[in-house]
Amino acid sequence: MSTERTVVRGGLVITAAEEIHADVLIEGSRVVALAAHESAVAESWTTGDARIVEAAGKYVIPGGVDAHTHMELPFGGTAASDTFETGTRAAAWGGTTTIVDFAVQSVGHSLRSGLDAWHAKADAQCAIDYAFHMILSDVNEDTLKEMDVLVEEGVTSFKLFMAYPGVFYSDDGQILRAMQRSAGNGGLIMMHAENGIAIDVLVQQALAAGHTDPRYHGEVRKALLEAEATHRAIQLARVAGSPLYVVHVSAEEALAELAQARDKGLNVFGETCPQYLFLSTDNLAEPGFEGAKYVCSTPLRPKEHQEALWRGLRTNDLQVVSTDHCPFCFTGQKDLGRGDFSKIPNGLPGVENRMDLLHQAVVDGRISRRRWIEIACATPARMFGLYPRKGTIAPGADADIVIYDPHAEQVVSAETHHMNVDYSAYEGKRLTGRVESVLSRGEPVITDRTYVGRAGHGQYTPRSTCQYLI
Amino acid sequence: MSTERTVVRGGLVITAAEEIHADVLIEGSRVVALAAHESAVAESWTTGDARIVEAAGKYVIPGGVDAHTHMELPFGGTAASDTFETGTRAAAWGGTTTIVDFAVQSVGHSLRSGLDAWHAKADAQCAIDYAFHMILSDVNEDTLKEMDVLVEEGVTSFKLFMAYPGVFYSDDGQILRAMQRSAGNGGLIMMHAENGIAIDVLVQQALAAGHTDPRYHGEVRKALLEAEATHRAIQLARVAGSPLYVVHVSAEEALAELAQARDKGLNVFGETCPQYLFLSTDNLAEPGFEGAKYVCSTPLRPKEHQEALWRGLRTNDLQVVSTDHCPFCFTGQKDLGRGDFSKIPNGLPGVENRMDLLHQAVVDGRISRRRWIEIACATPARMFGLYPRKGTIAPGADADIVIYDPHAEQVVSAETHHMNVDYSAYEGKRLTGRVESVLSRGEPVITDRTYVGRAGHGQYTPRSTCQYLI
Amino acid sequence: MSTERTVVRGGLVITAAEEIHADVLIEGSRVVALAAHESAVAESWTTGDARIVEAAGKYVIPGGVDAHTHMELPFGGTAASDTFETGTRAAAWGGTTTIVDFAVQSVGHSLRSGLDAWHAKADAQCAIDYAFHMILSDVNEDTLKEMDVLVEEGVTSFKLFMAYPGVFYSDDGQILRAMQRSAGNGGLIMMHAENGIAIDVLVQQALAAGHTDPRYHGEVRKALLEAEATHRAIQLARVAGSPLYVVHVSAEEALAELAQARDKGLNVFGETCPQYLFLSTDNLAEPGFEGAKYVCSTPLRPKEHQEALWRGLRTNDLQVVSTDHCPFCFTGQKDLGRGDFSKIPNGLPGVENRMDLLHQAVVDGRISRRRWIEIACATPARMFGLYPRKGTIAPGADADIVIYDPHAEQVVSAETHHMNVDYSAYEGKRLTGRVESVLSRGEPVITDRTYVGRAGHGQYTPRSTCQYLI
Amino acid sequence: MSTERTVVRGGLVITAAEEIHADVLIEGSRVVALAAHESAVAESWTTGDARIVEAAGKYVIPGGVDAHTHMELPFGGTAASDTFETGTRAAAWGGTTTIVDFAVQSVGHSLRSGLDAWHAKADAQCAIDYAFHMILSDVNEDTLKEMDVLVEEGVTSFKLFMAYPGVFYSDDGQILRAMQRSAGNGGLIMMHAENGIAIDVLVQQALAAGHTDPRYHGEVRKALLEAEATHRAIQLARVAGSPLYVVHVSAEEALAELAQARDKGLNVFGETCPQYLFLSTDNLAEPGFEGAKYVCSTPLRPKEHQEALWRGLRTNDLQVVSTDHCPFCFTGQKDLGRGDFSKIPNGLPGVENRMDLLHQAVVDGRISRRRWIEIACATPARMFGLYPRKGTIAPGADADIVIYDPHAEQVVSAETHHMNVDYSAYEGKRLTGRVESVLSRGEPVITDRTYVGRAGHGQYTPRSTCQYLI
Repeated sequence: MSTERTVVRGGLVITAAEEIHADVLIEGSRVVALAAHESAVAESWTTGDARIVEAAGKYVIPGGVDAHTHMELPFGGTAASDTFETGTRAAAWGGTTTIVDFAVQSVGHSLRSGLDAWHAKADAQCAIDYAFHMILSDVNEDTLKEMDVLVEEGVTSFKLFMAYPGVFYSDDGQILRAMQRSAGNGGLIMMHAENGIAIDVLVQQALAAGHTDPRYHGEVRKALLEAEATHRAIQLARVAGSPLYVVHVSAEEALAELAQARDKGLNVFGETCPQYLFLSTDNLAEPGFEGAKYVCSTPLRPKEHQEALWRGLRTNDLQVVSTDHCPFCFTGQKDLGRGDFSKIPNGLPGVENRMDLLHQAVVDGRISRRRWIEIACATPARMFGLYPRKGTIAPGADADIVIYDPHAEQVVSAETHHMNVDYSAYEGKRLTGRVESVLSRGEPVITDRTYVGRAGHGQYTPRSTCQYLI
Repeated sequence: MSTERTVVRGGLVITAAEEIHADVLIEGSRVVALAAHESAVAESWTTGDARIVEAAGKYVIPGGVDAHTHMELPFGGTAASDTFETGTRAAAWGGTTTIVDFAVQSVGHSLRSGLDAWHAKADAQCAIDYAFHMILSDVNEDTLKEMDVLVEEGVTSFKLFMAYPGVFYSDDGQILRAMQRSAGNGGLIMMHAENGIAIDVLVQQALAAGHTDPRYHGEVRKALLEAEATHRAIQLARVAGSPLYVVHVSAEEALAELAQARDKGLNVFGETCPQYLFLSTDNLAEPGFEGAKYVCSTPLRPKEHQEALWRGLRTNDLQVVSTDHCPFCFTGQKDLGRGDFSKIPNGLPGVENRMDLLHQAVVDGRISRRRWIEIACATPARMFGLYPRKGTIAPGADADIVIYDPHAEQVVSAETHHMNVDYSAYEGKRLTGRVESVLSRGEPVITDRTYVGRAGHGQYTPRSTCQYLI
Repeated sequence: MSTERTVVRGGLVITAAEEIHADVLIEGSRVVALAAHESAVAESWTTGDARIVEAAGKYVIPGGVDAHTHMELPFGGTAASDTFETGTRAAAWGGTTTIVDFAVQSVGHSLRSGLDAWHAKADAQCAIDYAFHMILSDVNEDTLKEMDVLVEEGVTSFKLFMAYPGVFYSDDGQILRAMQRSAGNGGLIMMHAENGIAIDVLVQQALAAGHTDPRYHGEVRKALLEAEATHRAIQLARVAGSPLYVVHVSAEEALAELAQARDKGLNVFGETCPQYLFLSTDNLAEPGFEGAKYVCSTPLRPKEHQEALWRGLRTNDLQVVSTDHCPFCFTGQKDLGRGDFSKIPNGLPGVENRMDLLHQAVVDGRISRRRWIEIACATPARMFGLYPRKGTIAPGADADIVIYDPHAEQVVSAETHHMNVDYSAYEGKRLTGRVESVLSRGEPVITDRTYVGRAGHGQYTPRSTCQYLI
Repeated sequence: MSTERTVVRGGLVITAAEEIHADVLIEGSRVVALAAHESAVAESWTTGDARIVEAAGKYVIPGGVDAHTHMELPFGGTAASDTFETGTRAAAWGGTTTIVDFAVQSVGHSLRSGLDAWHAKADAQCAIDYAFHMILSDVNEDTLKEMDVLVEEGVTSFKLFMAYPGVFYSDDGQILRAMQRSAGNGGLIMMHAENGIAIDVLVQQALAAGHTDPRYHGEVRKALLEAEATHRAIQLARVAGSPLYVVHVSAEEALAELAQARDKGLNVFGETCPQYLFLSTDNLAEPGFEGAKYVCSTPLRPKEHQEALWRGLRTNDLQVVSTDHCPFCFTGQKDLGRGDFSKIPNGLPGVENRMDLLHQAVVDGRISRRRWIEIACATPARMFGLYPRKGTIAPGADADIVIYDPHAEQVVSAETHHMNVDYSAYEGKRLTGRVESVLSRGEPVITDRTYVGRAGHGQYTPRSTCQYLI
């Protein structure tokens, strides 16, 4: 660790809990101190050789933690178009300084081999820090034992799928066993909650009926079947005595299941994503094949669901907003599904847009500034054992800091974004607020909207276990 | 049809809707008229050669309709110990004049062949009328088509299992397809709602831990997993747009799912059984291997659940009480599961006890007399398309009539019961009320507690569709 | 009682529980027997001097029981325009053969004096049978004691108001005491559930803001304040250990409170009225002063509430449809409130329309024929202790019978109706179904759409207590 | 403001959001900076004349904010036994550095005169800072206007009572008007939610039945009547469009109403108190007249409710724990109610015990350390507009800081407590954790368990409005 000193000066420091006019002293990779702006203490820091980052009129916020990304994910015969190199650089441009990506176990192989493969992809590529969840595709005696080892090593969360039979799908017995194991080893089960067995029947029926356009993707993956699976996952977790984290909640009915569970005091958590907050089935129904750009699972829902999700973020029945970033180019990838919506690769780009879209919700009066930081930085860090290094600005924390200009205006566009994908899901959307500078462990990655980072700066970050289990 | 005349005279006629002091005129197999007792009209009936059944001081009630029996059911390498001959005779002794038994499709075979096999078992054997539901063990294109034919023929209800993987189990896709089909053809899906995939994991874990006694049968088949499956079945029915009938509801949590669905106005129905109303896990935990007598699925629950079920009968969130009669002798059958509760044949005797046990609930003030007839006679008849022939006493209805003595006292015992099984689940229980005489389509089956019926009197009765779908 | 014999022949007899092709034999005022049509027994009845009512192709139904009417009610300086004479005749035209009207206790006077006054109004005036509920305007030690006496005499239900401070209003302490008393004496508390204290604040504010048109009547009497009062009444009844009947439920939110209470198994009952099922705030907002025609309390609600009420009738969370018949002429009465909606007399005409409007719901597929009879005849009779004399067709019951033509078409209009009021709330509405003939205790009141009844035929009918309390 | 420097060194700084090993620099009355312990920056602070507070092995926490106290409150012919002088000193001993007490408007007088009277009582008496809520006893045009002025001046919350008719009671119309006003002026309505009208009936009936012992206080003030009033207050707040804060929630059923409202996203908040978390009706039923010590309203509930309240604190359906500190001596005050429980002055001592009791809940694993600070310091400060001066430790905040020894053991007793009351509600209770030192705006009040403060140090603190309204 270098002991170079940096002072972020004059901004409004916003964390999940505080808004303070304070200067931040960084030594090497860590935050060392906060002091009231213009106090003698703060003034004393600016002497000597300290690098000064001027933040007057700006927000000084913790770097975003995106707990759900899929860089280079193989899916449906192709792979997500962002590499760890391009994807983490784009993340930094968007004010995110940590991602938690999903390493994938293939059926018939060990967790270890899947994890090794993902380490190989990410190693020396990343502009920002990263960690891994593990996707379990094959729950058996051996992989259950491996879970214990991985938790010890810092891979403390495991994703299971109730959808995608034949690929990622686990049956309820496998799910129960994995949950029982995590109840013992402290791991957190993350659930893709859709009844894939029933959905696949509806998919076949839709295709047989000649309903092949992208919008049918939304129609067959019914909200009731997301709610059903959510309810089932919760009941299985109760039987196992384990906590549960439901990823990419999109349906009001699914949210209602979470709310009901949380009212009982259960350790059940929910994540949603910007696409469910800002996009809808109207997008899936865009003419031509344009709807394919918005094909992801769980699918976009009718507009009415957006209100419910915003309410869930206010009531804390949803705790985290991640991106499920999984981009596929419209040309050459999404078009694999022309004439058969079920062959459209599932996923949207978004890692670069999350912090800005959520800031827009602050501007629109939907959430407070502190809640913005909470759902985008602090809670994901705590949920996945990265806190207190990540997700806050406090003495001892990693100096992952974003200087955010709350007044800048921008128009989102594939022309200007940094993700390696040929379209934007938010093309043309006007937003107020923009990242100005980014520090990752004290080192500049973006300075005044110039990328000054490098592949390989980002470090793999082992995680402790979920911090919400009391 | 003979035109022999019978007059049931002087009793209190109780139907689901009325309590009237009336005489009942039967001509041949049908009820022709009711007239106020001691009216000139009624008096005129008793002249000539009419057979007079004196019912003064007695109840005159419709014969019971038991919509859930399993005579001679093969299960776990043995078969239910009552044949259609012994079982229907015992039913008559208990005041039940119609059963709806379950024909079973075996995996890989047609519905037709299963139905034929059950017809062969029952033909010329029954003391009372009978009909069939069909168990679907193998939902596929062919069997879906057969469903339509069976509905036309009078087999209008189809049972599916979310439990028993590898035997009766259907996955959610098969369930959805069968529901979609029944939405079209007017059939009613009956569901065994337990998450058998998860339960089987718990069974294996219990056995591996040396927990082999009968009481573990109750512990592994968790109430939450019945509730889960109930919720799932409801959601699948909503997706399919079909009605749903959940059999043998035993857990308060499952009942809550039904109540919630019914509050939404959904066509969701629920049945419970006397064993869940009168027995509990205390019985399963009886010392020695005695608990095996009470092994059935869904399992008996802790006593607290009984109150909820009685409440459900009052609120009409449960509409039907059937027996799930499926007897296995303690010696020679139940003891297949000594040392391994999972090998105990699942099932209890009860077809003879239902009407009396529910009358006891009238005596105890839990339900009214009319509600007794409603849940035991009228509603099962309407639910399964046997009404107005069965389930009521009215001009035009079949003369299936029970003369019931509400003041007689009895002690239930295997010593005295007529079911072909070596124990009673209610051994020693004192009850007030007893069947005195029984007519089936106008012919005496029990007269003053003497059996005067015969195998073969009972006729197969094709059914119309569920009458609750508006 | 004369012993004249009447036979109603060839129709479809519909009760709450049965639909049978049967002839009905009446001797004097009572039904004596039902026999299958064309049976020898039935044929034998038509010999001799029996009066034959031909009903082929018609429904033969129990006369309607309207459990909520206000003939000649003084209100706001005027009085309801139907006398017992005109109102009961109109009722008969509409197929209703029993009304339960509300005798009113005035503040400072005894229940007895109020009841006497109402007896004086009704005596020798009525075309059909009638009974009384009692409105309690002044709950105190004396009136509590009088309640016991009235229950003994056959006035077994007592209405309280949470609205109309200074007139009918009782505070929560008075309500609690009346409920406690009824818990002891078997009476049933009927509740007008609106938070009148809060509503009156909103009324004053609306008027002060110049919002004087009839539609503001609907805006100030908020659905939330109906729901609040409903919840409060339920909780007070729980504390008192008494049953509760909520009159004229109009808001979905209030219905939700009832549903929640009933799910708990509480003896809580709910009534709605045709105006809430068929009319809406659109009517209140009709231009000019037309909206005044639809001013009643609880008020009409936005159209969306109608679906909820129909659902409540299907789920049995609402059990009764009464009219709250309380007509005021548009000219000379309703116009007392020109320029001040709070001065518009509250009430609608409807006693003549109820049976037909509900039959239209049968035609429209909203309810079954049996449910029609249940909510309009059988349940109100049982709820208010008139059963088995009223509400059904069975040996021993009063021969209150309607021959109903299900295929006749009519257009509702003040031109043709028989109520003493100068407008119809359903003017111009086309309905399928119409009353053809009406018998009251065996005597013709309407014969082939000619009025043949007489004032004074109708008898006061003391009532037993609510029959739903097990 | 003096510029004396203090450094709190070596402790674990715990706020609602963070746990950090940091030193805290105080200049004058404010926190100026936090720096990682042993960092060069932190070390530099200890030079010169700074006062050093050693906190190694201790927690460094924000001073507690008790948002519900009643010093010197006149009640039932006597007055709460703690003056502002004795009460605030005791608060400091217990780690609380801010109280929000209730100024009382008397019926017929202005808010101003009540507020002035309370200022006079508190002025120059307090050991710690204080603020005022205002109790509205008489809502009318004048007092509604005064509310606006008070909000401007820093009295931003107003308590209304649904209990105590004839004393503090407001009817639903007054409540609605006050809520409407607060919806406009930013004030927060605090509600004592019990149906006092109904309760008073039960009180009179209990006394008439000779039920005069303290335990009847708990029996007549029924949980259902707390739930009812809570529901009613919520509905009125919805009609008014205002937020709502329900004080001293004690019943599970009332909590359920809050949870349901919060699930809808409403701005409804709830407070409970240590007595409801740690005491029960068992205490009220203590023999002799001992139960009188525990008479407060809302009353203590059966033990089962405690679990629900703890769950509510975990699910954030309850956000604040205050004391409702209102002590009356057992001898000379509580005994006014010998022979008539309704004359026992309502209230318990507790201002000194709150922080310790809640720390015990941390030790017992019920809540996390951060949640302890949140419910006891940060949220009350935010709820009542005292943040960021109070409730946290951050640059710019008031230096209200407690050095807390998490390992010290204590036994609660009236022998050793500092409140001016002759008994402790927690006599003999063993607790782990104890306040060691307390700073108020940088000045020592308690140093190593010696009181070094003074009456008059505490300042009146005007408040901004509730910070939870987005």
